[in-house]
Amino acid sequence: MVPHLATALTGPINELEQRMLDAMPAIERWFRLEWMEHTPPFYTCTDIRNAGFKLAAMETSLFPTGWNHLSQDTLPLAVQAAMAAIEKICPEARNLLIILENQWQGSAYLANIAQLQRIFNMAGLHVRIGSINPDIKNTTTATLDQGASITLEPVIRSQRRLGLHNFDPCTILLSNNLSAGIPGILEELHEQYLLPPLHAGWSMRRKTRHLQSNEDLARRLGKMLGMDPWLIHPLFAHVVTKTKANANTDIRSEYHMQALCDAVDTLLTKVRRKYKEYGIHEKPFVLIKTEREGTGMHSFAVRDVKALEHSVLAGQLLAHTLFVQEGVPTQERVGQAVAEPVVYMLDRYVVGGFYRLHSAREADHYLPNTPDTRTAPLAFAHGTHLPRFSGASTPNRFYMYGVIARLAMLAASYELEASDPEAETYR
Amino acid sequence: MVPHLATALTGPINELEQRMLDAMPAIERWFRLEWMEHTPPFYTCTDIRNAGFKLAAMETSLFPTGWNHLSQDTLPLAVQAAMAAIEKICPEARNLLIILENQWQGSAYLANIAQLQRIFNMAGLHVRIGSINPDIKNTTTATLDQGASITLEPVIRSQRRLGLHNFDPCTILLSNNLSAGIPGILEELHEQYLLPPLHAGWSMRRKTRHLQSNEDLARRLGKMLGMDPWLIHPLFAHVVTKTKANANTDIRSEYHMQALCDAVDTLLTKVRRKYKEYGIHEKPFVLIKTEREGTGMHSFAVRDVKALEHSVLAGQLLAHTLFVQEGVPTQERVGQAVAEPVVYMLDRYVVGGFYRLHSAREADHYLPNTPDTRTAPLAFAHGTHLPRFSGASTPNRFYMYGVIARLAMLAASYELEASDPEAETYR
Repeated sequence: MVPHLATALTGPINELEQRMLDAMPAIERWFRLEWMEHTPPFYTCTDIRNAGFKLAAMETSLFPTGWNHLSQDTLPLAVQAAMAAIEKICPEARNLLIILENQWQGSAYLANIAQLQRIFNMAGLHVRIGSINPDIKNTTTATLDQGASITLEPVIRSQRRLGLHNFDPCTILLSNNLSAGIPGILEELHEQYLLPPLHAGWSMRRKTRHLQSNEDLARRLGKMLGMDPWLIHPLFAHVVTKTKANANTDIRSEYHMQALCDAVDTLLTKVRRKYKEYGIHEKPFVLIKTEREGTGMHSFAVRDVKALEHSVLAGQLLAHTLFVQEGVPTQERVGQAVAEPVVYMLDRYVVGGFYRLHSAREADHYLPNTPDTRTAPLAFAHGTHLPRFSGASTPNRFYMYGVIARLAMLAASYELEASDPEAETYR
Repeated sequence: MVPHLATALTGPINELEQRMLDAMPAIERWFRLEWMEHTPPFYTCTDIRNAGFKLAAMETSLFPTGWNHLSQDTLPLAVQAAMAAIEKICPEARNLLIILENQWQGSAYLANIAQLQRIFNMAGLHVRIGSINPDIKNTTTATLDQGASITLEPVIRSQRRLGLHNFDPCTILLSNNLSAGIPGILEELHEQYLLPPLHAGWSMRRKTRHLQSNEDLARRLGKMLGMDPWLIHPLFAHVVTKTKANANTDIRSEYHMQALCDAVDTLLTKVRRKYKEYGIHEKPFVLIKTEREGTGMHSFAVRDVKALEHSVLAGQLLAHTLFVQEGVPTQERVGQAVAEPVVYMLDRYVVGGFYRLHSAREADHYLPNTPDTRTAPLAFAHGTHLPRFSGASTPNRFYMYGVIARLAMLAASYELEASDPEAETYR
């Protein structure tokens, strides 16, 4: 089930979209059966690009922020999904502790936390907000827009549990993506549920592992739908340095740059071949990305390998573990702005989303949610102009985004199973 | 979790409501733990009366109709809950067959069926509509308001399965409340899920069994909340004829009438005592009801046992098995109309509701959903007048209805467990 949200799509339904709409019952059944075998991550958000000819999940966060950007009218879906998630994980729960990022900028992050607090509060839990930043020693109350406020408290760690003053939670929800590593204070919590688990953090996650998992699933879904999996996932390539790194930074950089150029070239060639196969007359591009979030480096787009060698940006990136991902052009627009859908999920339910808006000039870069990100929430597609009983036959143009986002969520589920340090214990 | 729907309540929050709002996390936890042990009925709707001083579930249908009266904006909640229900019962489902009532009047019933079809279609199933009425031999298409249509097909029964032409469902959803008895065509379906089960039908259900179950649960919930359970459930009394029935109808009627008067008198006395205890200055009344639906008899209200003995209505009722239920006056109004909330649930989720509207003169009687029932849908409580982040602190005035409706659903779950003919097999 994917809620019927109003998208920016106004053109005719193309072949790819029609195929997904037609296969809806089969796709839903496929997901239901997958979720019988695999546990969904607690919550995710997925960045999607719709090129018209293809639709792909570009990034999937296991520590989604930006909940405040969702349309207010989709909130009940999030609450209902939160209730289902809690019921499954810890039905006896009374208290939920949300752990903040250690650093953040602007009030948007806190507005996002306030929205999460609201969702889990409406799902029937006492929810309080804790910080594991050792510099935070006192309880503070921050004022948000429109007069609301949020109270942040320093955590208290005991031998086996983490809590706040007079607050012993059964479940701890991490909004902290652990990009700086796993803090000791979160380890060895044997009697509390930590969501997502520590190995979902960016100190352990690798984006190519996720992409590989997504590619495998796209292949299976594509087979079921009788279509080329390339239409629903982005290609990617590892950057493999063929010589050993040594102390000589310049030589290492040189080898790294060569490896990067090779990967870019290989991937551009692959994409070019696909464009030719489908008669697409756009110029292919790829994105150079770091394997982990939290490096402070943004990905950037390359259309021509020749321009890469002397690029200052590429030079800076070389200090990190890189990979190359197929760029998927964005066809959607809200007003003059390029609009990129971001889809939110809680447990295995699609609960809402928004468009991230920016100018065409910025469109080549992967843009994280920053305080000044402009967004347009995706609201329910209904209104007086829709006849009351025609809804079933009005195509849900958000449906395909829900499919791609859940494919990415399922990929994250496989990814987390494979990287789970306690997997042996489970078997 | 109870969605935040806009009610007709505008007055201050009274003590009963405030107590429920304050205890929300405890109440939600209580339900979560109950649903771990008890399977919710597939879907229900519950008629509620809000007297201000007390709040009670008056009737709970296990074959809810009237889905077309729900607010369009709550539809996604129903779809998400339907998905959760299907996932639990039959994840491999592709096809759902909805079985109609054998007789119905007006197009409202079909509009209701069309809405159910839409909900389960959006949840990812192929949904078709079948009739088990032996008079229906051909497929017919009925036109609904606003140009929509619905196709009704005769069922085809094989040795072990029920289906339609070229349609083999894994799950069969009954909209037929079986008040005329269990038709053989629905029996011995060993390989298909029949929802609700046959023993939920009115040929086997007794309203006092449900009320007893509801009373037991109200006592437990009341104990947890530290409040008199009378505040959240209606009293009731059996009509016990102390002599054996014999062929002489008149004498039997006489004894029955005496028994009925006794029950009415006993219950009125009980209610009067409660009113005195709480300083309520209204005149108590009770409802005379038949134990089963589908008798064609409506319940009616009695304020004075003396007026009862020669009542023509009571005389007609005596042919049925009767009981007496405390009447709960309705405080709510929409415009000039008396407004009675009806709450809809799917699986263990509250998914919407409406007010049934009628004139004060009609308020004493229990009114079933007839084609000309006037309703006011309960929509989400939001709008531009609500600040974006203040929602958590805006009290959800629909919450208490959600509690009472779920209490009734849980009571139905206990009731069905106790009456399940296959219960031995399960243990």
